Order: sequence, then structure tokens, then C-alpha cells
Amino acid sequence: MKLNKKALENLDRIERIKIINAVSGIKPANLIASIHEDGITNVAIFSSVVHLGSDPALLGFILRPTGEVPRNTYDNILANKSYTINHIHPEFTKKAHYTSAKFDASISEFERCGLTEEYIETCKAPFVKESRFKMGMQFVEALPIKQNNTLLVIGEITSLILPDASFESTEDINLEEINSVGISGLNSYYTVTKIAEYPYARTSEVPKFK
Amino acid sequence: MKLNKKALENLDRIERIKIINAVSGIKPANLIASIHEDGITNVAIFSSVVHLGSDPALLGFILRPTGEVPRNTYDNILANKSYTINHIHPEFTKKAHYTSAKFDASISEFERCGLTEEYIETCKAPFVKESRFKMGMQFVEALPIKQNNTLLVIGEITSLILPDASFESTEDINLEEINSVGISGLNSYYTVTKIAEYPYARTSEVPKFK
Repeated sequence: MKLNKKALENLDRIERIKIINAVSGIKPANLIASIHEDGITNVAIFSSVVHLGSDPALLGFILRPTGEVPRNTYDNILANKSYTINHIHPEFTKKAHYTSAKFDASISEFERCGLTEEYIETCKAPFVKESRFKMGMQFVEALPIKQNNTLLVIGEITSLILPDASFESTEDINLEEINSVGISGLNSYYTVTKIAEYPYARTSEVPKFK
Repeated sequence: MKLNKKALENLDRIERIKIINAVSGIKPANLIASIHEDGITNVAIFSSVVHLGSDPALLGFILRPTGEVPRNTYDNILANKSYTINHIHPEFTKKAHYTSAKFDASISEFERCGLTEEYIETCKAPFVKESRFKMGMQFVEALPIKQNNTLLVIGEITSLILPDASFESTEDINLEEINSVGISGLNSYYTVTKIAEYPYARTSEVPKFK
């Protein structure tokens, strides 16, 4: 099936949201957590965390326009520059999913959705205890995307918590073993199965294809 | 295992790249294709395609600093504003992986890596014929990320090609059925298996957790 620009514009709003949220392919499932100065914590699911660079270690995520739910997160990040990014695993995808409901700012999604706060000395924001792979983040900058009033929120990784076994090999960290899940569309969750690992691609070592 | 900022900075360069490329979770595997005015085509693998919004339908991807391989892609995009984003499937992950080698600009990765160009009337850039889910894109803007000289390249979806069966259900598009793969680290490829789909999260319908 082919849809041109006009056909895309003419799609029913919900249908378009459903389709366009799937076109980028599998998206990482992360919980972003923060804390207000008054001590109320906030945690919300994001599928837009993206690797920006390894040195310095930078990650970005896309924040929806003002008025939508994750702004509690952003207000907290601006106030104290601290947040955490936590992988989601199959045991708590349902709890993680419901953090996307538009709870009042006075309610902590940790409590309402049955997730557990965890703190370390060097990070003000809470981690999600249930997560096995998580990062403490220092806010760096937010770049406005003027076409749709979203923001690319940029942060530097200041702490990294992951299973010891991740380092036992010279291969890439195995996301299947850690069992981190992915998202497609707005509501669908996926596990991942490793099928291949190839060497760094040098022009002199490219196989003869065909 | 916990690594603080100092421990992260002290990691061996290759080790850090390996780890930091895995921390965001599963990444979508896409081939981005473009064409030079002289007719030479270009295709390169990217794991940073990110959903920016559904109306208008915008996608972004992160481009490494000048001098690295994907700049042929960017030069082409700037020249004629056209590119395509194509999902990768298990049958051709190896071919897709080797598009990351630093081929000379005079060499088409389509030919060298055994991939097939496909054209439609409304898109100047080639699609990857082997892909079952792909988008024709119109360049919109590139936002500089000054912390590491990368760019967020923003484009609008002007055509969408996907299997007819994708529309047979009211559920999210099923990436397991389409068999689109993900990436973690720099070199590891994963298939995805759907484990759950939950309804839109309304505060009044949040289950009692705990």
C-alpha cells in the first residue's frame, strides 16, 4: 500500500497517530523520573530517547508541547537539572504504560503505578528500582523544534547502573539478556531477540554481495 | 555495577562507545537513501531515527560530525531535499550493516552491498526495494547540537509504503509481522516479538497496582 502526502493528511486523526508512531521502527521503552523541590516525584514513559554521542555521553529525548502530561517532568528538570532514564522490562510494562495517564502534579506516578523509588548519593532524581539498566542524567540544553513546538531535551550521563554480567564479554551489551523492551505505535510492547553481530565495517573487509 | 561520571570518562574509548551506544535501549534499524545530482546513489544505516510528531508527520535522525561517512547522505539531502527511510529486515541485516563502511563518494552502497534501488514518481531519492516499510521524506531543517557537532536532521513524510495487511486491524501496526529489526550497540541486530498492547491510559481507568 502506498500513501502520498495528501492521503496521509486525509487520514482520520487517530489512525494517523497510530501509523506515524510506528513508521520509525522499534522504539526504546524508557521511564524518565524526576523530583520536585517539594519532594513529589514524577515518572513517565518515553519512547523517544536517542543516542547523541559517546564522548561526552549524551542522550536526547523529545518532549511534547506545553500542556501535555510530561511537562511535570520538564519543570522538575529545569528546576534542579537532574533526571534518570530507566529501561523497562516485561515484568512491569503495564505499570510503565499507565504512567502516561495525565495525573495531577500532586500525585506521584511511582505510588499510583506501583513502581519503587531508588536513590544514589550523586543523583537528586529517583531511579526506578525495578529497572536493571538505568542512567543518572544532568540536564544540558533543550533545543526547540519550531515545526511542532516540541523540544529535544539533551542531557549528559553522570551515572550508569547495569548488571555486572554486561561486562563479561567483548561483544556488545546484550539487550536480550537484560530483557529491555521496545515500543511501537503508542500502546504496543515488544521483547527483543539477538540474531546477529557483525564486525566494525571496514571497506577492505566488505564481503562480495551478489 | 555502578559507574559514576569519572569512571565513564576513564573507560577505554572503544569500551565507552560500545556501552554508551547501548544505554538508550533498543534502537530502530533504518537505511537512509539519497541521490547525488550526478545520479550516484547513496545508502547508509542509521539507528537514530526518532518520531517528532504526527501532524505534520515529522521524523528526525542524528548525523555525525563532518568528515564521517554519512555526510554523502547529508550533501545529497541539502542539494535536492529528498531522502528515504527504509526499515531493515533479517534477510538483509548483513548487507545493511556493511553500508556503514566508509566507501568513496563515487561508489554506490546499493551496488557494493547488494541492495536494490526502487523509485516512485513523487520522490527523487531511491527507496530500498528489499524493505517492506519505507518513507519518502522532504528535508525540513537541520538543528545543530553544539555540544558534539552533531545535527538533528528533520524531515516530513511525503509518502509511505507498507504492507496492505498493516491496516487490517484497529490495533497498532505489528512490527513483529512486518519483521522490522532493531540495533543495540554498534553491531548487534535484534528481531522483535510483541508481548502486550494496552489501551490509551486515562486516569479514570488506571488499574489498582499493588
